[in-house]
Amino acid sequence: MRKVAIVGAGLSKFGERWDASFRDLIFEASSMALEDAKMEGSDLQAIYGGTMAPGRLIGQEHVGALIADQLGLTPIASTRVEAACASGSVALRNAYFAIASGMYDIVAVGGVEKMTEVSTEEVSFALGGAGDQEWELFLGATFPAIYALMAKRHMLDFGTTEEQMASVSVKNHKNASKNKFAQYQNEITIQDVMDSSPVASPLKLLDCSPITDGAAAVILCSEERARKFTDTPVQIIGSGQASDALALANRKSMTEIAATKEAARQALHQAKLTIKDVQVAEVHDCFSIAEILAIEDLGICKKGEGGKFTEDGHTALNSKISVNTSGGLKGCGHPVGATGVKQAVEIYWQLQGRANGRQVKGAEIGLTQNVGGSGATAVVNVYKRMD
Amino acid sequence: MRKVAIVGAGLSKFGERWDASFRDLIFEASSMALEDAKMEGSDLQAIYGGTMAPGRLIGQEHVGALIADQLGLTPIASTRVEAACASGSVALRNAYFAIASGMYDIVAVGGVEKMTEVSTEEVSFALGGAGDQEWELFLGATFPAIYALMAKRHMLDFGTTEEQMASVSVKNHKNASKNKFAQYQNEITIQDVMDSSPVASPLKLLDCSPITDGAAAVILCSEERARKFTDTPVQIIGSGQASDALALANRKSMTEIAATKEAARQALHQAKLTIKDVQVAEVHDCFSIAEILAIEDLGICKKGEGGKFTEDGHTALNSKISVNTSGGLKGCGHPVGATGVKQAVEIYWQLQGRANGRQVKGAEIGLTQNVGGSGATAVVNVYKRMD
Repeated sequence: MRKVAIVGAGLSKFGERWDASFRDLIFEASSMALEDAKMEGSDLQAIYGGTMAPGRLIGQEHVGALIADQLGLTPIASTRVEAACASGSVALRNAYFAIASGMYDIVAVGGVEKMTEVSTEEVSFALGGAGDQEWELFLGATFPAIYALMAKRHMLDFGTTEEQMASVSVKNHKNASKNKFAQYQNEITIQDVMDSSPVASPLKLLDCSPITDGAAAVILCSEERARKFTDTPVQIIGSGQASDALALANRKSMTEIAATKEAARQALHQAKLTIKDVQVAEVHDCFSIAEILAIEDLGICKKGEGGKFTEDGHTALNSKISVNTSGGLKGCGHPVGATGVKQAVEIYWQLQGRANGRQVKGAEIGLTQNVGGSGATAVVNVYKRMD
Repeated sequence: MRKVAIVGAGLSKFGERWDASFRDLIFEASSMALEDAKMEGSDLQAIYGGTMAPGRLIGQEHVGALIADQLGLTPIASTRVEAACASGSVALRNAYFAIASGMYDIVAVGGVEKMTEVSTEEVSFALGGAGDQEWELFLGATFPAIYALMAKRHMLDFGTTEEQMASVSVKNHKNASKNKFAQYQNEITIQDVMDSSPVASPLKLLDCSPITDGAAAVILCSEERARKFTDTPVQIIGSGQASDALALANRKSMTEIAATKEAARQALHQAKLTIKDVQVAEVHDCFSIAEILAIEDLGICKKGEGGKFTEDGHTALNSKISVNTSGGLKGCGHPVGATGVKQAVEIYWQLQGRANGRQVKGAEIGLTQNVGGSGATAVVNVYKRMD
């Protein structure tokens, strides 16, 4: 395969963006990424966009064409990819293939979701489409309920505590407090999480990532042309993607995301590395329990020990491994289609030494793990700065 | 780029499939394609699925994972691609890149849409998401209205007649009468079209493709392994994709689909051929005027002459060029996500000499043209039988 690197990155401000439409968010993130790569829009040969549910959320499909149109970049090929909350990572992976195949040299990857224009009930229904409509959502199992089941089982099997789960949110808010793009730039305490409103027992409000508007973009380039745009391109050295049963009830285990394990196996195998080589990782903490599952399934700690590992501070900034330095989905917010691309943006900045105030010292290898729904899709990508 | 070929194809019956769910349709087409390639599901390394609006039509997103789940093929990577009515072709193109990149050798491509479970009003709104939600659908411009504007302008500028448009539907119904997968296997007359109910003047009911349930699948394989599965693989020798403004009002012309011209230029350039080398083409006749635009924009005839060219029989089976031998969207039906893949299935059968009763004599080179919305996306692929 041809080698491919990131040469530019951009984000919109994440949050309740009453001031910005779907199109505005795309423009905000993309123009920042193009400026970062010191590139004109006309340098781009194709676009990939990840977005989950614009059909339900804003009545708009055909988002590939919309992006090219909005950015004034027609007639270049522009393609929307959807994999629920992993849409952004799957878009990035397919842009990577498009360059690796030799078809293109320079491709923009965007992720976007505009979630706050509809009622909470409508957004819950739209997000429910990430699970099994017939066997979960129809019966009332929204996403907090599904992850609550996983959390309960994890507590039962491994003795994980609510305070340990809360420690995920506390860490991620602390990191988000140093990220000007994050929805929540305030620190919180274990007690704040424990005192917050119940959502689906044992998950409380501050265990849950919020409803967010936002967009993210990166520019990918073939290795041979990458240094034209930056002195420190960040190469994608491994990429894995796996699927699992859509409905939680049809999985082999409720306390692991098997797709994460398989995607990580593929990505690390391609990169010829092990998880021990990774200094900085962005993982999918849509709920606090999800980050615990992620670090276990990635092999950062042993199965069942993710809660204690987090509580003991081993995933904090500049500890054993720095997890969710951006603030994760909890702190940054979770505009579902944008999240996977935002993870890549954070790793790009970290490996370039540009993560002001939350820089991981000596970060050489970064990893992203992005989950669709309750684990029916997982994508793991591994990155290295080109020296 | 590595060379890639189709080695198996399958379709579900197209129509109002009250007997079959979204998942059933996927299974019907995929199992036929696998059998056709004499392959087990376990031979597949990845899946790409094209579908437009399952979020609105059946409340389900995350269709990539759903396909792998339904077919019992987890944990392989399974990705949904969306480009409105061109979703199927864009899925096929990205599966092609995935193999060409060297990541995979054998990939299934599916297209599916289940459209008849909601009211006509709901399906019209969902389809409206293929155009510009804010500047077209919100103001009442559904798709028949948008194509009616294009038809009116074509009549005004070039003297195209309603009877010439009707001749597209008459030809396509005739072809569909020989296709057991088609929704409508009955012949119609010019008078039938002229007498059918007005939908959006000048388009009448029989100028319009119907609302359809259906699925289509092809198996792609790297060239070096293709002959393991069939004696006559059909190679993808060119692929082009282009974008244009989402809203018709923002295009340079109302009487051409510029994205088709650009996608065809790319695909034929890659194939090192001209349109004159093509004997059989499946084009996007969502409305009768759309086929007239398609044959003009592909260069099959001159701009403005598509109506007369069709009326004179030059696109009929075994005439100058055989267009929409499957019956097209009008005769087969138009399950939007499936259509682009169904076009590839028809070309596969034609180039293998397996198009019973509607076989194009001496077909060596085939072409598909698939449009998203009113032309904001177009994909053109060119195929050749490997001898």
